[in-house]
Amino acid sequence: MINVSIIGATGYTGSELMRLLVNHPEVTLKHLTARKLAGQKISHTFPFLTSFLKDKCFVTLDIEQIKQDSDVVFICLPHGHAMTLAKELGEDIKIIDLGADFRIEDSDTYEAFYKLPQTAPDLLAKAVYGLTEYHREAIKGAQLIANPGCFVTNALLALSPLVESNLIDSESIIIDSKSGISGAGRSANVDNLLSEAGNNFKAYNPLQHRHIPEIEQELSRFGQTVQIQFTPHLLPTERGIYSTIYVQPRSNISEEALRQLYKDKYAEEAFVHLLDPEQLPTTKAVRGSNHCHIQVKVDQRTGRIIIFSVIDNLVKGASGQAIQNMNVMLGLDESLGLSQSGVMP
Amino acid sequence: MINVSIIGATGYTGSELMRLLVNHPEVTLKHLTARKLAGQKISHTFPFLTSFLKDKCFVTLDIEQIKQDSDVVFICLPHGHAMTLAKELGEDIKIIDLGADFRIEDSDTYEAFYKLPQTAPDLLAKAVYGLTEYHREAIKGAQLIANPGCFVTNALLALSPLVESNLIDSESIIIDSKSGISGAGRSANVDNLLSEAGNNFKAYNPLQHRHIPEIEQELSRFGQTVQIQFTPHLLPTERGIYSTIYVQPRSNISEEALRQLYKDKYAEEAFVHLLDPEQLPTTKAVRGSNHCHIQVKVDQRTGRIIIFSVIDNLVKGASGQAIQNMNVMLGLDESLGLSQSGVMP
Amino acid sequence: MINVSIIGATGYTGSELMRLLVNHPEVTLKHLTARKLAGQKISHTFPFLTSFLKDKCFVTLDIEQIKQDSDVVFICLPHGHAMTLAKELGEDIKIIDLGADFRIEDSDTYEAFYKLPQTAPDLLAKAVYGLTEYHREAIKGAQLIANPGCFVTNALLALSPLVESNLIDSESIIIDSKSGISGAGRSANVDNLLSEAGNNFKAYNPLQHRHIPEIEQELSRFGQTVQIQFTPHLLPTERGIYSTIYVQPRSNISEEALRQLYKDKYAEEAFVHLLDPEQLPTTKAVRGSNHCHIQVKVDQRTGRIIIFSVIDNLVKGASGQAIQNMNVMLGLDESLGLSQSGVMP
Amino acid sequence: MINVSIIGATGYTGSELMRLLVNHPEVTLKHLTARKLAGQKISHTFPFLTSFLKDKCFVTLDIEQIKQDSDVVFICLPHGHAMTLAKELGEDIKIIDLGADFRIEDSDTYEAFYKLPQTAPDLLAKAVYGLTEYHREAIKGAQLIANPGCFVTNALLALSPLVESNLIDSESIIIDSKSGISGAGRSANVDNLLSEAGNNFKAYNPLQHRHIPEIEQELSRFGQTVQIQFTPHLLPTERGIYSTIYVQPRSNISEEALRQLYKDKYAEEAFVHLLDPEQLPTTKAVRGSNHCHIQVKVDQRTGRIIIFSVIDNLVKGASGQAIQNMNVMLGLDESLGLSQSGVMP
Repeated sequence: MINVSIIGATGYTGSELMRLLVNHPEVTLKHLTARKLAGQKISHTFPFLTSFLKDKCFVTLDIEQIKQDSDVVFICLPHGHAMTLAKELGEDIKIIDLGADFRIEDSDTYEAFYKLPQTAPDLLAKAVYGLTEYHREAIKGAQLIANPGCFVTNALLALSPLVESNLIDSESIIIDSKSGISGAGRSANVDNLLSEAGNNFKAYNPLQHRHIPEIEQELSRFGQTVQIQFTPHLLPTERGIYSTIYVQPRSNISEEALRQLYKDKYAEEAFVHLLDPEQLPTTKAVRGSNHCHIQVKVDQRTGRIIIFSVIDNLVKGASGQAIQNMNVMLGLDESLGLSQSGVMP
Repeated sequence: MINVSIIGATGYTGSELMRLLVNHPEVTLKHLTARKLAGQKISHTFPFLTSFLKDKCFVTLDIEQIKQDSDVVFICLPHGHAMTLAKELGEDIKIIDLGADFRIEDSDTYEAFYKLPQTAPDLLAKAVYGLTEYHREAIKGAQLIANPGCFVTNALLALSPLVESNLIDSESIIIDSKSGISGAGRSANVDNLLSEAGNNFKAYNPLQHRHIPEIEQELSRFGQTVQIQFTPHLLPTERGIYSTIYVQPRSNISEEALRQLYKDKYAEEAFVHLLDPEQLPTTKAVRGSNHCHIQVKVDQRTGRIIIFSVIDNLVKGASGQAIQNMNVMLGLDESLGLSQSGVMP
Repeated sequence: MINVSIIGATGYTGSELMRLLVNHPEVTLKHLTARKLAGQKISHTFPFLTSFLKDKCFVTLDIEQIKQDSDVVFICLPHGHAMTLAKELGEDIKIIDLGADFRIEDSDTYEAFYKLPQTAPDLLAKAVYGLTEYHREAIKGAQLIANPGCFVTNALLALSPLVESNLIDSESIIIDSKSGISGAGRSANVDNLLSEAGNNFKAYNPLQHRHIPEIEQELSRFGQTVQIQFTPHLLPTERGIYSTIYVQPRSNISEEALRQLYKDKYAEEAFVHLLDPEQLPTTKAVRGSNHCHIQVKVDQRTGRIIIFSVIDNLVKGASGQAIQNMNVMLGLDESLGLSQSGVMP
Repeated sequence: MINVSIIGATGYTGSELMRLLVNHPEVTLKHLTARKLAGQKISHTFPFLTSFLKDKCFVTLDIEQIKQDSDVVFICLPHGHAMTLAKELGEDIKIIDLGADFRIEDSDTYEAFYKLPQTAPDLLAKAVYGLTEYHREAIKGAQLIANPGCFVTNALLALSPLVESNLIDSESIIIDSKSGISGAGRSANVDNLLSEAGNNFKAYNPLQHRHIPEIEQELSRFGQTVQIQFTPHLLPTERGIYSTIYVQPRSNISEEALRQLYKDKYAEEAFVHLLDPEQLPTTKAVRGSNHCHIQVKVDQRTGRIIIFSVIDNLVKGASGQAIQNMNVMLGLDESLGLSQSGVMP
């Protein structure tokens, strides 16, 4: 069995790791850390784990204990912490950071968007970006994974086949994304109360969201310098990211050719699916699952390509992909522990 | 015009007073106080007021200024504050307290349930309990109103005709109530996040809710000592209280007689309605309005009477009834500013 | 008093007209027609009207009766019906059609998008397009109003100042719109069940929605031929339209200049508001009200202008604007009966 | 592998069976029947199954084919159909009926509540009632299972320990239940539209719900004749049943003794859990899972016992329990395919 610890287990990426890992056949949960709730039963905070973790309690972070007892550590903390923790955890343990510390290759950009200096350049240099479908080989040999952002995962799965094929104007990309409110985290915040966010819809951070440089960095890997327009919005529900993406092709492309491009790209993937032509994605179809559903359309009238892409922000957008990466790192079946379908209705 | 100030205007009873009073033809809003948000535009916190309050800002509480400029003051603060404030405001100004300080006649009971001593016994003695339909005459002459609790209003409108008529076993009453989450207030609280409370349902404080002594006090006014069972629950939506009430009649009563009792009682009331026999109340039918819908049934099989009653917790359960009381105190048409129907869908 | 009848009163635009008109000080509701529900109490279908319409019932459509008793008729039927009804109602009665029959000036386009021939070209020629803020003078003298579509109203209020000023590339407009589910109507449809549409989000009709030709027609009135990209989505809530609009300016424009353009345009308007720079619109702020909130941003990085615009699809997007048009037609205060603020929380 | 067919796979109990069975390690899905949708891809109706059922289609009901190819058949049809189908399927195949046809032992009661005659008395006599925790031994040898109703399952798990122990007044039971809207099925119905049922709460069928005789029948098995008061309500969310149950003990009982009773009863059960004393159940904690969470309280003031009980109506209340029964019938581990925790947030 693989011994797994989670640093920062009281947020939603932490709780989602627990939800999925209690059913992972090769995993034993060891230390689940919390600051304020250390010593309290996990099931009192997360009663959906009642019959799985019995009387197990959150513990205070103890790096030495974690190093001694863990094969894999997931870090689920706000940015800034993983840079320090990864150093302390050392090189003999697999580390998957669900935060942003190792996502941005350019330290100035990191500092500009995250208002913190990058203090672990050595680790940054060896960290592997964990978009599994595109970095599988590097992930196999990695010790430290920078797990991608939720909006980023959704945008990259939708756009990479087109950008990689050099088919589109690299400055034409407009990504209009809508996320469930769990993306805003589990901290007490008036704006995210049911009374405020329920039955509401709004954009936030439209011109300066932190996922912009991450998307541009990853899309620019394919050769062209990509500049995107990105507008995130909040949906009045817990889970799901839906991106509607508008791009200008360099020259006319048929919908058939476009579909074939995506089919070929994702034919062998367990978690990425091009829907049939008569379908459009829905967030509910992937709720609770690690799947990504994509549809592509060519608007004959305007000449634009429109891509629709959905994931569950907490699964493929965070904890599910983190487990997928763990499976790849450890040479396990990539889908282990991730077999759930979406929960509908 | 009547000059109105609101002390504590950043909570939901405060914002609901503003929502209703900007359309009250006889009211001018004067001072709207806030602690943290003083100096900031009200419309930035409550953008639904954008075109009504223009650039008006929250102000710091200044008792002298309020006394000087106001005919009526609404106090929308947590319990404990109104006892002090009402003294400072003096006797020349109409005061309506939306909190609990003047609701409980027995000071020991107040202290037991609210964990604070009752420090204004003189004011308590002269405060009038503001369930408009049952205390209209006293309200006309009152200077200080104890505006009833939300669950209490709903329960009393549903039960008073039966208790007053001495038709039921006074220890048989079971009130199973369900409230929209705005009843939990506008403070930052993880439990009330959309991610937690959305699509969820749960009971809270089932044996010891603070509205228990208030309901018992008011029902016991009719002569018998009433003891109730009361269980509040939280609905995954913003507004509405639905009570399902089970009582044992002293002797058999027909549904026709029961309906006639309620019809007679509420025939002249603008805001309390017995539905037709084929209907059952729904919270949505009263959302945003000051109305109460009631249905009564006799279960021939079990012999019990079942009463269904709905209000909007923020309107008839709080700010709407407070305005209704203001209208009565000032000799205005009781419905002034309260003419909205429920907002559906 | 103005006698008003509604043809097709059982859908959401009909019920919303009733919700607003029961509080309109100059209106008496006369005949409220229904096919299946004729003879049944309106309050049984719409219990939020219980205390307003008492025992009033839906009636079967009787054109002669309506002509005899009404000053104004609202037609709330699927497209195709109003062409016939408007002829039968004649020229002595004010008619406001909330459907699409008189919105599209080009009959071939109408037939292409609505799959029905335009059979009332004479009426079409004299019908006035009811976007009140832009056609007020024509509406004053009109007998027949084509009330705009909901998405259309939102898009036009957001885009017209820019297009009118000839500041943007007329083929660059991308409108990403999100609507509450009431926009899908009140007919029984599995897709719109709470179990299906609740906690879900999806696009629909992305390349061929019927509001596309209507938006293009109205924006092209300003001189340039405008071609838009329009993608409607469904939100898991009842009310509200949120549009995020991306446009390419012809040349650089400062955010200050852009704001001044909108301020000047809407300075005298009761229902259209440019928010302060630090705000972004939310659907909840206008829920139940006739208001439109707009924000405009210039992205220095990409050069694009982004416009955010919200309305309540049933009010400013349908029945509220219809009443606003009625008020203008009759020489009443344009805001009469439309004074409600948004209902929040 | 076990070959499983589902008759009536387009409703929510059918789709939930598929959701769970695609991850059951011993099951192969064979024939999934539909009337209107036969020949269409299952993933077009239920896109959450896209990557699980690939291009598999619904088929027309063909009894001979099903008999030939299936070890187990689940019937997910409205009442009245299973009586006929079970006869046609014969005795060589395991049958689990998720409808009501074999739940009510008294045929007159069945006819009174379901408005249909019981036409399969032989099958009724040999059918085993599938509340797994209470009929496990009989289920092991059964060929035909009457899978319990959703409200019934929840009520029986909550009440049986008390009734079995003869501790309570058998006419004092009041069950106030709240269900997610999926309990109302997947048929097109205006009342269940998101626009109507969303953000709404209401009781329905309060005195005559079909689950009343089923609950009374099962509780009366313990010796006393039990008469209940039962009021179902609809929650504005998809899944979950919450019951708040009020009972009068025959004589005083301590909360400790009460807790011990439940602990002892359910100590060995995988799916039924008494929560810690400081907890109250929430529907979200069991969403998507086969678990039941229970809390018990003694109100010292009123003397009543209050029980709180939650399940997911589609899992433990229907399809999950059906699979649990299948596992027991086939001698498999009872939890196979049912290991999911609740999905939260």
